Amino acid sequence: MKSLRKELWFHVPSRRGFINITPQVEEAVKASGIKDGLVLVNAMHITASVFINDDEEGLHHDYDDWLEKLAPHEPVSQYRHNVGEENADAHMKRQIMGREAVIAITDGKLDLGPWEQVFYGEFDGRRKKRALVKIIGD
Amino acid sequence: MKSLRKELWFHVPSRRGFINITPQVEEAVKASGIKDGLVLVNAMHITASVFINDDEEGLHHDYDDWLEKLAPHEPVSQYRHNVGEENADAHMKRQIMGREAVIAITDGKLDLGPWEQVFYGEFDGRRKKRALVKIIGD
Amino acid sequence: MKSLRKELWFHVPSRRGFINITPQVEEAVKASGIKDGLVLVNAMHITASVFINDDEEGLHHDYDDWLEKLAPHEPVSQYRHNVGEENADAHMKRQIMGREAVIAITDGKLDLGPWEQVFYGEFDGRRKKRALVKIIGD
Repeated sequence: MKSLRKELWFHVPSRRGFINITPQVEEAVKASGIKDGLVLVNAMHITASVFINDDEEGLHHDYDDWLEKLAPHEPVSQYRHNVGEENADAHMKRQIMGREAVIAITDGKLDLGPWEQVFYGEFDGRRKKRALVKIIGD
Repeated sequence: MKSLRKELWFHVPSRRGFINITPQVEEAVKASGIKDGLVLVNAMHITASVFINDDEEGLHHDYDDWLEKLAPHEPVSQYRHNVGEENADAHMKRQIMGREAVIAITDGKLDLGPWEQVFYGEFDGRRKKRALVKIIGD
Repeated sequence: MKSLRKELWFHVPSRRGFINITPQVEEAVKASGIKDGLVLVNAMHITASVFINDDEEGLHHDYDDWLEKLAPHEPVSQYRHNVGEENADAHMKRQIMGREAVIAITDGKLDLGPWEQVFYGEFDGRRKKRALVKIIGD
């Protein structure tokens, strides 16, 4: 069994943002030399997400609006977690979008459907944060 | 390390539907000859889900109602993604239900709890779509 | 490839509760002797969750309130699943929080971010239930 571990670092200048990390994950798979296996991609922070969906600007705007409805940032006083910080909503939003994606590797490539793209979803940005790529296989 | 890759195809005639795919996943595990490992089952489409829950008709009806409340299909104009299509809500519903399930394989079988069943969840049907089964182990 | 399988048992005396199981998962990884691989941790019940987030009491209270808003327990008659039981809401809450976490193992340890902690999330307790830990790697 071979493996590769790689961290991907981000700095989203605003509170929220979605970054397509498919090329970086694909590159890590190539570097691993693994032809057949699994790759785990997860946010290493609890106010961020790694998820798979469409790379479409309108949809990302819709996600932003929708998540704000399901887990509003304001009023920040509605959350007990918001003592000295105000990111409780980000902990909720990340649960809906999910922490991680596990992707098959076949013939040395990400085995994704035609529209599947891997995203880092930031819900409490304005500082350096990271995702983990861990690949195992043969 | 051994591996097996298999696609499962579906055609749900309505917009939404849940299909119990546990037997197909179990069959793939058997065909792989793998006794100990992991199986990844994921929707290859971004408006569909693979999730694990109960095979109970009342619950599936409840899921349908509940997801419609959290991410309503109508009015379709509420979503920016709905330009030339009207499936933005399906992209939301899939995020709540999740893209994938990872299941342990022990003694050559799916290592599931007593009520755990694997489902393909369709939120934008009326066409052929598929899920991926990827098994790795020994 | 080596592997280890372990069940973790819980008895949450109330309907809902969050238990930090990071030490038990870490212990299982150590016992496996696996230096490089993946660990799957999943609820074996469909009204419970394994998720990764912060070990902060205020946040857990917020999750409880928030999940109750998104999928209210009462009135129990609103769910068709509630015939002879009344845990339909628990099946919804678990979908939002997720069934499972997959965590990388590096240098024989859980490869978690600084605040990542693994939780068993109970939404229909008052009886013995369990989670599965399955580790594969070298």
